[in-house]
Amino acid sequence: MKAIGIDIGGSEIKAGIITNKGKILKKIKIETNSIHGKKSLIKNLERIIKKLDSKEIKGIGIGFAGGVDSKKGQIIQSPNIPSMNNVFLVKELKKKFRKKIILENDAALMALAEALIGAGKKYSIVVGLTAGTGIGSGLIINKKIYSGKDNLTEIGHTIINFNGPKCSCGNNGCLEQYVGIKPLMKLTERKIELHNSILKKMWPLTPKKVDLAAKKKDKTAVSILKETGIYLGIGLTNILNSFNPDVIILGGGLSNSDLMIKTAVKEMKLRAFKRTRNTKILKAKFRNNAGIIGAGLIVFKSN
Amino acid sequence: MKAIGIDIGGSEIKAGIITNKGKILKKIKIETNSIHGKKSLIKNLERIIKKLDSKEIKGIGIGFAGGVDSKKGQIIQSPNIPSMNNVFLVKELKKKFRKKIILENDAALMALAEALIGAGKKYSIVVGLTAGTGIGSGLIINKKIYSGKDNLTEIGHTIINFNGPKCSCGNNGCLEQYVGIKPLMKLTERKIELHNSILKKMWPLTPKKVDLAAKKKDKTAVSILKETGIYLGIGLTNILNSFNPDVIILGGGLSNSDLMIKTAVKEMKLRAFKRTRNTKILKAKFRNNAGIIGAGLIVFKSN
Repeated sequence: MKAIGIDIGGSEIKAGIITNKGKILKKIKIETNSIHGKKSLIKNLERIIKKLDSKEIKGIGIGFAGGVDSKKGQIIQSPNIPSMNNVFLVKELKKKFRKKIILENDAALMALAEALIGAGKKYSIVVGLTAGTGIGSGLIINKKIYSGKDNLTEIGHTIINFNGPKCSCGNNGCLEQYVGIKPLMKLTERKIELHNSILKKMWPLTPKKVDLAAKKKDKTAVSILKETGIYLGIGLTNILNSFNPDVIILGGGLSNSDLMIKTAVKEMKLRAFKRTRNTKILKAKFRNNAGIIGAGLIVFKSN
Repeated sequence: MKAIGIDIGGSEIKAGIITNKGKILKKIKIETNSIHGKKSLIKNLERIIKKLDSKEIKGIGIGFAGGVDSKKGQIIQSPNIPSMNNVFLVKELKKKFRKKIILENDAALMALAEALIGAGKKYSIVVGLTAGTGIGSGLIINKKIYSGKDNLTEIGHTIINFNGPKCSCGNNGCLEQYVGIKPLMKLTERKIELHNSILKKMWPLTPKKVDLAAKKKDKTAVSILKETGIYLGIGLTNILNSFNPDVIILGGGLSNSDLMIKTAVKEMKLRAFKRTRNTKILKAKFRNNAGIIGAGLIVFKSN
């Protein structure tokens, strides 16, 4: 049994043939090029699908970085690919491909892949948390995606500091204002002048370089990652106290800095209930491939 | 079909005969008198059950104000009745009564009653939120209690201000530090001297009296309820962004002040996503009886 799994992100589109066991048989990758508009993007998707399609393909699963309406197969909020806002993507693709096509949020599919066959496969309640430009999250209960009323379970936009900075979502002090690439780079800008940091010689700066500098014991870099780790720990505590999951799985850039994760888990243990403070916090198994694997697997999971 | 529903709170124990439709056929109420220790409390429970028991009674459901382990039938955390900490209540009662006995968190049972036959009966995903001394919460998915790994889904202890005041749970800036009887009375103490408030002549002060003064346009009282309402609205936003429910049902003291609820909903609409900001916020239907109704109904729900 095979399916096509597609992961549409702001900078690239990944796709692959995925078996019902989650194995990747073939993988392709193109640039999203969202500036050329929705027609061009849909045409690119059609080309990719054509390349991977065959009689053996049971269906097509698509993960999208933004708010989607899975029931309607529609993209609702697309902060990174605004040209796709409100597009009924499933309907568009069904014109060319008479197969089952499923549209889901990308973080939910990452969490699903991890819950089914990855770091969370032994557990019933799995929360997946990924941070890149923004924070994505997914809750998997008994191997099924919990979508809520509108596919809008966005832990990244829960308030951890009600007087905190304005968020793009309209809210204030969201977790996403403290954890992720943007806040990490802002914090770096603010802290870089404080000590004689080696980061000053590492332009252009990236989260990876901050992590590298921290490994070399650069005080500024260490302090940046520890502060971000504390914020992440606050987010983890809120996840524990809201969902009381068996495991939280960290993906995306989040899982790259061991110092940050260590600090986060320490902060979480200080804040959480005695009974839940030892909840497992694990790194994602599939990293960059979790999206297409989850997108393929959802085809077999749905009826 | 009938069951016994019992609601064990810090000050009183309520119990009743509940039909499978949630109707209360008989109701009794005694003081908890927890200072006499666990043996006395268990004996009191036995007496109550004996009074209500008959051949027609299918089982006994018990709601407890604190952390419980439903699988083991054990009370885990009991801030208001510390003598019951760690007691295997179901095992104790089974010595005398050879029936199905179920132990659950009281807020979860309140939410269940509302989801099955109360304000939430038309909805699939229901969050119940009650505030008295503390904040209790329950999530009901497709008419079943979502318990998490350890029966510890405590929205009252999610962080809304990471620099906020210390909470009894060990955490900082929990929602419970801002919404509920204690923070409301603290805020009243702080604000009462600011204006020439009629509250000064209303000792001893209670949340009810603050609401009364606000209805008489007392500026201090209005400002107290509005500030608390804003905090509640922040909590509601976090519930929307975490669980994306169909409805949030407010119980306990929370649902008594219309001004507070109105302010909370306004704040929530400012902070939540466009798609979820019109989520229904309803008052609980069963008020003080929700606990025993939910406790009775869980007997019929479980296998």
